[in-house]
Amino acid sequence: MATLVLLRHGESDWNAKGLFTGWVDVRLSPAGEAEARRGGQLLVEAGLRPDVVHTSVLSRAIQTANLALEAADLLWLPVRRSWRLNERHYGALQGKNKAQTREEFGEEQFMLWRRSYDTPPPPIADDDEYSQVNDPRYATLPPELMPRTECLKDVVHRMLPYWYDSIVPDLASGRTVLVVAHGNSLRALVKHLDDISDEAIAKLNIPTGIPLRYELDDDFKPLVKGGEYLDPEAAEVAIQAVANQGR
Amino acid sequence: MATLVLLRHGESDWNAKGLFTGWVDVRLSPAGEAEARRGGQLLVEAGLRPDVVHTSVLSRAIQTANLALEAADLLWLPVRRSWRLNERHYGALQGKNKAQTREEFGEEQFMLWRRSYDTPPPPIADDDEYSQVNDPRYATLPPELMPRTECLKDVVHRMLPYWYDSIVPDLASGRTVLVVAHGNSLRALVKHLDDISDEAIAKLNIPTGIPLRYELDDDFKPLVKGGEYLDPEAAEVAIQAVANQGR
Repeated sequence: MATLVLLRHGESDWNAKGLFTGWVDVRLSPAGEAEARRGGQLLVEAGLRPDVVHTSVLSRAIQTANLALEAADLLWLPVRRSWRLNERHYGALQGKNKAQTREEFGEEQFMLWRRSYDTPPPPIADDDEYSQVNDPRYATLPPELMPRTECLKDVVHRMLPYWYDSIVPDLASGRTVLVVAHGNSLRALVKHLDDISDEAIAKLNIPTGIPLRYELDDDFKPLVKGGEYLDPEAAEVAIQAVANQGR
Repeated sequence: MATLVLLRHGESDWNAKGLFTGWVDVRLSPAGEAEARRGGQLLVEAGLRPDVVHTSVLSRAIQTANLALEAADLLWLPVRRSWRLNERHYGALQGKNKAQTREEFGEEQFMLWRRSYDTPPPPIADDDEYSQVNDPRYATLPPELMPRTECLKDVVHRMLPYWYDSIVPDLASGRTVLVVAHGNSLRALVKHLDDISDEAIAKLNIPTGIPLRYELDDDFKPLVKGGEYLDPEAAEVAIQAVANQGR
């Protein structure tokens, strides 16, 4: 049996402004920093001590991990990072206002880009100010792996190799693993863990800043589907709030 | 040719109070946090972009790395930690006031413990409130490796395996390496790099918060002995201040 804890980063500067973020490297807002510290306190209150931490290469997830670990007095934990845990690449929508996008393209197209499993937004141009093709953190990524847009299906496909090759070996060695990442990379992981269908995943929202604990069996599948939020009441309130985002 | 950058953490809560710290896991003071951010800015101003970061497992070094990387917009860098980069274990002096210790034991004994190469302070008792024998971060360390006190010679011996096995391979692969650590673990490393004698190392002080850059040859030895501080004037002022500490 192994323990996996998922933590979605809190509010960023762009969440607060209602912009599509994706791979744009924005920082946490002060509210997001507070959420991260509260996430660390929830770990302590639950008596959960991770042995290793995995994050994306985006600052808002790394800040969240750092602040949560500082609050839990666990700064010394080994930590690994991968672009495979990044948020979904939002393509040409990156940097665009969510409400304006809905107005411009209509509700149907807007929800298709936001929630359909296999329809990515239009790709971002390499010379767009919100493109990451020249970001040094992806300098060692072969060009054919560098996304210009992604649907959730794409995220599942690029995330799963990291799950199998980096996270599962940690779990297999008996370590409690903390994964600090993003709304869509965590939805992709939860889809895999809980065997959620391509249709049903559209309705799944993961709240920010509240650790989600899974106890896994020998096949690294959950003993209890959906896992357990360390603050279930706050999770329920937050899930409703995310569902109403952009409305 | 390879580039190595050393960064000593800034003022901690206990530096500010004049207490021997060693392996006690105190946090940075607000002044130390500011030093760390300034260290990151100096990296940017020098156009130095590390590819990988190594820290000790002590919070004050990890906080320094996190704040410097945040200031340099490099939070995404891979980071590794090792107890082998920890500060010297100060034995039974941990938690004691420096000025009081000098008064109690006399100037000669005080300076011997602080600066001799091979005279460690008395060992700390396992039930001392400032012992680390039950600290979870050392749970996987075999008992015979867990120090109860250390002289600088001990630090050299336990630090060098990490230099050879973890840092040198990074340098050999052409990466620019940032090491964020402590006064004595960095003195131990500089003693090795610059071939400083057991006697002369007593007089070497490394200032806090100012990155020290070494360009290394194919044998991983400095092209220029002593390296180059990214802010040489501030380094000179700080070196004098450390020399006067405890007086």
